[in-house]
Amino acid sequence: MRPLPMLPSDRPAGDPPIFQRIAIVGLGLIGGSIALAARRRWPSGLVIAVDEKPVLERAMVLHAIDVAADDPVVMRGADLVVLAAPVRENVKLLGELAEHVPGSAVVTDVGSTKRRMVEAARALPPRLAFVGGHPLAGAARAGIEHARPDLFEGRPWLFTPDEGRGAEAVERLCTFVTALGAEPRMTDAATHDRLLAFLSHLPQLTASALMHVVGEGAEFGLTYAGRGLIDTTRLASSPAGVWQDVCATNADEIGHALDAYIDVLRELRADLDAGEALGRIFESAGAWRERLLAAQPRRG
Amino acid sequence: MRPLPMLPSDRPAGDPPIFQRIAIVGLGLIGGSIALAARRRWPSGLVIAVDEKPVLERAMVLHAIDVAADDPVVMRGADLVVLAAPVRENVKLLGELAEHVPGSAVVTDVGSTKRRMVEAARALPPRLAFVGGHPLAGAARAGIEHARPDLFEGRPWLFTPDEGRGAEAVERLCTFVTALGAEPRMTDAATHDRLLAFLSHLPQLTASALMHVVGEGAEFGLTYAGRGLIDTTRLASSPAGVWQDVCATNADEIGHALDAYIDVLRELRADLDAGEALGRIFESAGAWRERLLAAQPRRG
Repeated sequence: MRPLPMLPSDRPAGDPPIFQRIAIVGLGLIGGSIALAARRRWPSGLVIAVDEKPVLERAMVLHAIDVAADDPVVMRGADLVVLAAPVRENVKLLGELAEHVPGSAVVTDVGSTKRRMVEAARALPPRLAFVGGHPLAGAARAGIEHARPDLFEGRPWLFTPDEGRGAEAVERLCTFVTALGAEPRMTDAATHDRLLAFLSHLPQLTASALMHVVGEGAEFGLTYAGRGLIDTTRLASSPAGVWQDVCATNADEIGHALDAYIDVLRELRADLDAGEALGRIFESAGAWRERLLAAQPRRG
Repeated sequence: MRPLPMLPSDRPAGDPPIFQRIAIVGLGLIGGSIALAARRRWPSGLVIAVDEKPVLERAMVLHAIDVAADDPVVMRGADLVVLAAPVRENVKLLGELAEHVPGSAVVTDVGSTKRRMVEAARALPPRLAFVGGHPLAGAARAGIEHARPDLFEGRPWLFTPDEGRGAEAVERLCTFVTALGAEPRMTDAATHDRLLAFLSHLPQLTASALMHVVGEGAEFGLTYAGRGLIDTTRLASSPAGVWQDVCATNADEIGHALDAYIDVLRELRADLDAGEALGRIFESAGAWRERLLAAQPRRG
């Protein structure tokens, strides 16, 4: 465990922090960006990070955190705990949290699926008020190196409060993420997981599958690929680990989305000559694409 | 039919045109861009366009063409004919070409599949020297409005000469497209169609299918879509008509590519919980994605 570093004395004072001691477990793109944004917003607050040593060293160099340790014991005094590891690690961390955080705290996570976390959180003692969260912010590249304090600017941050629990925690979290530039939105975990299966999980799986099949099928012709293939497969650089967790914790909804998708592909496949299915599906796709673009808020 | 417009007398002189009278049938993005590029490159040459009247009027406003008609009889004196309509229309036009062009001419097309055209061209009289062509240039939006004289700059232009035919025509076409900024490359029609099934036709079908399924499945949540979905579905605005022609004339190769893709999706689908297939496919996809990016020539 690392010692507390000295805080620079010339840090400008901000408004009083909503949380005094923020513990972030997992300093990837999201966890790292929360750290950077919170430090910039509330210089008098403390950002405590738990991750593996090499990641913590990079975070220190980037001035993203105040306190760093690879041992969760460092979270002891936190009044906000943000679980920002892959989903199944977050579930595991949740099980050990009461032991590491003896006082009262708000607890949230930033994972891409929510039902499993919300269920696991029901076992927490009442002093640890859990609200599931999911900032819909991403970037082409993962990792603390690509973290940015403005990552959440103008982006939705979904919360999935469990029925009748943590109303005060929800309110404080909304104030917190609004101060980071995000737009908090409420939904329930089941709706979240069904929606994200279509909006995010299906596009990820189809992009990786496409890149794999095109690579195998056109190995020596990749130099002739156009912009279309390059855009369509951008997500294919995503790391497997994070997505194994997403799929394992949302398998039913992702399964439904994949089934619907495979059905449409089989319709197209069966009718390549006549093109009736193609005409219908392309017309629908063109209209949905316009609605998708129209639904994007103008963001900075 | 429109009369020949007067040529402006103040046009600067260029080097001697490779073709004196270029007839382009179909003034979409590609046909229109060839017209603009050829007029800029060889001001003393003549660009003759055949399309429907509203398209020709837009092309005239854009100064893309010299002569415009909705009747193919206007091609009479052409020494280069470029068929730039959808593939099956090009095949039909090829059947009528000998009647409209009584002299010698080089004939090419710019369609996305090549076998059907190359076969149909075997029925042409020897004075019409056909070489199949496919400029690998595109843009997010189709139509003469988006045509640009620099569309082909640094992009490959594939030619698929038929065995032992049209060697001189190939040479002139290579000089022609090089002067438009493109990089001519030779292949055969079968290899072309197999390669493009993976590089272009499969990504198009999967993007349209994805946008259709996501729209139906997440209708009220499209405002929460991220950059990933937007990039992955960019191709979904493509018009059905062109792609019905592509699929009908390359159904066997597209069918194989779709089968391979559906197989991979089913592997993922069957293993969402354990994630072994996901680990393997994502690792392969990530590596292919890097090779795809590395294979892209630096283009201006």
